[in-house]
This record gives sequence, structure tokens and C-alpha cells, in this order.
Amino acid sequence: MRHQRSVATLVVGSLAFAIAGVGAGVAADRPDLTAPLVLKDQGSFFVGGFETRTNATTGNPAGQIGYSNTDVIKTGQMYVQFQAPKGEASRAPIVLLHGCCLSAKTWEDTPDGRMGWAEYFVRRGHAVYLPDQSSRARSGFDATTINQVRLGKKPPEKLPAIFTFGREAAWDLFRFGPQYPEPFADQQFPIEALGEFGNQVIPDLNATLPTPNPTYANLADLARSAGGAVLVGHSESGFFPEQAALADSSNVLGVVSIEGQCPPPTDAQLASLAKIPTLIVFGDHLGDSKISGPLWTKALADCKAFVRRLKAAGGTALLAELPKFGFKGNTHMLMQDRNNLEVADWMLDWIRDNALRRTAKRAVGKNRSGD
Amino acid sequence: MRHQRSVATLVVGSLAFAIAGVGAGVAADRPDLTAPLVLKDQGSFFVGGFETRTNATTGNPAGQIGYSNTDVIKTGQMYVQFQAPKGEASRAPIVLLHGCCLSAKTWEDTPDGRMGWAEYFVRRGHAVYLPDQSSRARSGFDATTINQVRLGKKPPEKLPAIFTFGREAAWDLFRFGPQYPEPFADQQFPIEALGEFGNQVIPDLNATLPTPNPTYANLADLARSAGGAVLVGHSESGFFPEQAALADSSNVLGVVSIEGQCPPPTDAQLASLAKIPTLIVFGDHLGDSKISGPLWTKALADCKAFVRRLKAAGGTALLAELPKFGFKGNTHMLMQDRNNLEVADWMLDWIRDNALRRTAKRAVGKNRSGD
Repeated sequence: MRHQRSVATLVVGSLAFAIAGVGAGVAADRPDLTAPLVLKDQGSFFVGGFETRTNATTGNPAGQIGYSNTDVIKTGQMYVQFQAPKGEASRAPIVLLHGCCLSAKTWEDTPDGRMGWAEYFVRRGHAVYLPDQSSRARSGFDATTINQVRLGKKPPEKLPAIFTFGREAAWDLFRFGPQYPEPFADQQFPIEALGEFGNQVIPDLNATLPTPNPTYANLADLARSAGGAVLVGHSESGFFPEQAALADSSNVLGVVSIEGQCPPPTDAQLASLAKIPTLIVFGDHLGDSKISGPLWTKALADCKAFVRRLKAAGGTALLAELPKFGFKGNTHMLMQDRNNLEVADWMLDWIRDNALRRTAKRAVGKNRSGD
Repeated sequence: MRHQRSVATLVVGSLAFAIAGVGAGVAADRPDLTAPLVLKDQGSFFVGGFETRTNATTGNPAGQIGYSNTDVIKTGQMYVQFQAPKGEASRAPIVLLHGCCLSAKTWEDTPDGRMGWAEYFVRRGHAVYLPDQSSRARSGFDATTINQVRLGKKPPEKLPAIFTFGREAAWDLFRFGPQYPEPFADQQFPIEALGEFGNQVIPDLNATLPTPNPTYANLADLARSAGGAVLVGHSESGFFPEQAALADSSNVLGVVSIEGQCPPPTDAQLASLAKIPTLIVFGDHLGDSKISGPLWTKALADCKAFVRRLKAAGGTALLAELPKFGFKGNTHMLMQDRNNLEVADWMLDWIRDNALRRTAKRAVGKNRSGD
């Protein structure tokens, strides 16, 4: 499959959206997606990470290079890419964090080659930060235990449980349909590109991480580097924005939890979280997939309870089931669904209206131009 | 460490370069690095990959989700990001492939926050493609064997050897100095940012791959998607461009092997490779580091022999030891060295003068504007 983004598809999508009568006025904000992209700044960097002296080089082919098996490596670091459009100073920076068995690719071009949320948010005027979770993808992971087991220094049951999704499991859990290979009639995921989506699904090495997951503090650190940011999590990382705010809320301008779980916070934690505007988003067909139906029904109920408590504590919070906002058939991968940009417009409106204002300048980037 | 690219540093660097009298005229080509970056197109996609039905989900926490342990996953795929500047049609597209224990981060911002080759090449008018090697970073890897050993289905010695570099090994092998922590007096790597560089070093999972390494064919496929490309490899992947050309040379416009090894090809392979312009690049101090000295001396000798054979077969080939071209003190990580953009200018001149012309249009990207 090759990626030919189709302008015709975008136009037809917008028309269908307008005809459906959802979100009148959104189309007026839609930037020209075929125009050149003008960036004030872009780059990549790391947050967090700690040095450890370990036998990490045990994978060294014997005799090829004569280095010690014990040396200093970094683990727990989090890789981040960012882009900032010209004139972005007035909009809230947004951090987009992927879920289980995925990487920042989640937010880039969709499996069928349409524009993803990352570039779209930049075109809507936001600086966008794309981390790979600590222990995933370009953030690396700590392979020490695997190498120790290989050398007989630890028993096999100490190996990390490395989780990934097969195609049939993803179909059910991501709610493309009630069971593989049957789709929901109104589902929005580009299932014709399911093979390409499979390329995005990579092993999850979070079982190699210490507790608490360093990604929480790294997200808070990233928000500081960005001079304040709205944190967006998805699925496995749905509640990571809240966890980051509990680690250090001082630069968290808002949290958005997409299709995640809502473990109940303590009263003290709730009082802290209630100061941060919170949006919880779920797609469609929450109870309709054969195996994961009860999981999604419980997630929705837990998140409703969380939002009720935030509101009772005086917080700004919204639990949004997308069908109640006019978006039908959205899947767990709603940032890649056919109506992904319409959902983005709706979400950016919420951020514009609700996110806290930032007060600091971002610490990363070379700030080329003066705007 | 935060990334504040310093315009002053860039200017001073250029001045020093001009004073040294190396590559007169290069400075005139240098684009304004503080100007906004204008992209005709950008995106990400995958090449290659094959489906396998396996017990890949054995990492599934027991009882949390009731999916089968046997499902279809993708392995061997190669993740690629790309950017194309406005007006890029006349310059050769360039693929930049990282080496061992690294990712595409190699080519982005340097550890001390200067501009890397990826963005710089775009600013010099080239479309740039940044893959993560198959089994590395966002390309994912096949965790089946690790999970099988964990469950007692295979013995521990079947685990892949997962290689990474510690700080002291990297210091020697990457030739920052004769031995850690002593630097060469004239070395060019920003060793004050060694901790940040450590964040880039991630485990190498190539031992999980089948033979031949799928990255070879994936690179050839990527060259086709790009409508023809110059392939650049580094270190572990130094000879991967040649391997890609041996798999399918039809879209390979040139190969650049940076600080890699040159295993001797057969005569038939050599005849094929001699049709492709070839640049082999080494930095400074090849014999001067305590442990890796002999390794580098041998790599240089092997690559000299390779270039002699290419020339004898009528090929366009250059073995460039950078000190002989006026660049002193360059390390193994020369794309991150303080004079990285000067070396880039020299290399882009070679590509301009020697790469084959492309005849096809690239197949990826949405080709927003008409240039």
C-alpha cells in the first residue's frame, strides 16, 4: 500500500460531515491541507532517563569487540519529536501520547494515507509534541534481564511479559466489528488498510520498566519544556495525563483521556486533578464487541464516576461519548478513523474553550523567528 | 539538557570553517537555518513486512483479556518518515539509515541541540527519508522467542543476543578519544552532551531477524517508493546500501557508506555494484583508540580494496578519509560532530556531481503542490 493522500477524499469527507449537520462552522476553520506546511521550528530531544551501570552489553558477540560486560547505560528516557507552526504562540501546545503496542506513528499519516492528528494540529496552529513512551520505539528499553536469562544468571520466568496485538484481537478490542472479520455497518476505521495498520503494532516492553512508570514524570517534564501543554493519552496511556499531573501539575494546561481507563483517585488526588480541565472521550459500540464489550462498558462507567467526582469538586470536566456529539461509528483508533479530522476539530474547540492559559515560554527549540 | 540551537554557534562554526580555507564556496550555498522551514510534503509509512501466525500474544496478562495466544502479527516491516521541501524535484532524494544501537534519531538534532543532517538536507533541497531499521524502534520486532522462553517452550540459550553500547565502550569504538574519559585533543564530538547522546543508544534486536536481513530489500523498496534515491548507511548499516543494491539496484542512484565495513563481494556482485556511484567515508583517528583501533584499521583497508575493485570494474567510486579532505578530528558519529554541516556540504557536493539521475516520480506522499 502506498500513501496517496487524496484531496477528493478530504473534500467528500467534509461534505458528508456538513450534510450530517454536525458542528456547523467547523469547516470554516479547516486549513488548506494541500498548501505547503510552514514550520517555525521542529526537532527531537529526550526527557528523563537515568544512568545505570549494568551488564547491558552481554549481547556483545563473543570476541568481536573486547569491551567489558559492565558499563553505564541510560534507561527510562523518553524520546520526543515536535513541530511548531509559524504563529503558534497563542495556541496551547499539545502532547499526543500513543497506547499499547503502538508508537507515535499513531498520530501521523493514517493506515490508508490520510493526514493524521499530528500534522493537522500543527496546521490548526498548535505546537505538537510526539513522544514514544519510555521503553517503546525510539525511547529504547532495558534489555538487561533478557540478557541475564540468556546467560543463565536468572530463571526464564523473570523474563518480561512482552505484549502485542494480533489482527483478530485488535479487531475485537479496537471495535472494528463484533468479531473478526465482521465489521460494524457504520464503523469508521479504514479496514481496507488493516494490513498497513498491522505494521504499526509493535511489542510493548512496559513490563521492563520500574514502578511508577517513568513516562508519568517524563510527561510532566515535557509539559514544562513546552512552556505548558495539554496532555492527550490514548488507550493504555489514557490516564497517563492524569498520572503526569499527579506527579507535577504545574505545566499541565489540560488533560484529554481517549478510550482509556479511569482508576479511582484518592480524595487528595481528586482535589489536585479537579484544578485541571479534563476531557474524557469514547467512541461508539462500547458494549458491542464479543470479547471486549464488558471491558469497555466498565471503562465507561468508571470514567463517568471519575468525571462526576471532578465536577463535584468544582472541576471543569466532560465525559464525551462521541455518538452523543453526532459522531457515529468511531472505533478505538478514532484518530485514524475516516472522520478523524472532524473529531479533531471538535476536540480542538474544547481545548480552545477550556484549557488553562500558558504563562511560560517553551524551553526546547531554537525559536527561529520572532513570532 | 535542553535544546537551544544557537545561531551564534552556527555563525562561528562557519567562520572557523572559512578561515580554515576548506571547501571555499560552500558557505554561499548554506541556507538560512533560522528561516521557517517550508515543506511541500511530509509523512510516514512502512515498507516490507510479512504476516505470521504465531503465539505472539503470550505476554497477555492472564485473564485480563480473553484473546487467543495464536494470532496474525506483522514482522520485518520498516518504518520510514520523510520530508520534502518545496522545489525538491531536481535534487536526488536521500535515505539516511542509522547504525547499531541507534535509531533515526541519529540524523535529527544533535545531542547538544544543533541541526542534524535530516533537516539540513531538506533545507538544501533534498527529499529526505529516515527509516528505523527493521526490528528497531518504530519498526517493531518479533518477540515470539522471548515469550516462548518465558513460558518454558524453548531453552534460554535460544534468546536473541540483545546488543547495546555502554558509555565507555562507545567512547572507544566511536573514537571520542584513545580511552574513556580521555578525549583526542582535536576531536569534534560534543562530549559535553555525552549524557544526552546516551539517551539515543537503544538495544539492537537484529538477532531476532531472519536471514537475509529484511532491511536490505526494504531499503530497495524504499528507493522505488522515493522514485529513486541515494542510500546512506552508517556503521552497522554502512554496507546496507550496497546490500540493498544487490537485492534490487533499479532505483538506487548512489550509495554512501559512512564508517562501515566492506565485506568483499563476489565478482558478479562487484560488476553490479560498479554501476552505482559509491562514496565511502571515514573520520579521523582510525587507529588511535585503545580497543577498537585494529577494527577500524581493518575496515579502512577492506574498504580501500573494495573501492580499488569498483574502479577496476569501471565504477565511479571514492574512498574518503576526511582528514585528507581538510576535516580534522571527526569521530564515528560525524553526522553529530561540531563540523557536521561542513561535512554535509562536502557530501552533498559529491552527490550532486556523481549520483545517477532519477527518472520516476516518487510513489509516496500526497504531492500537495505542483512543483
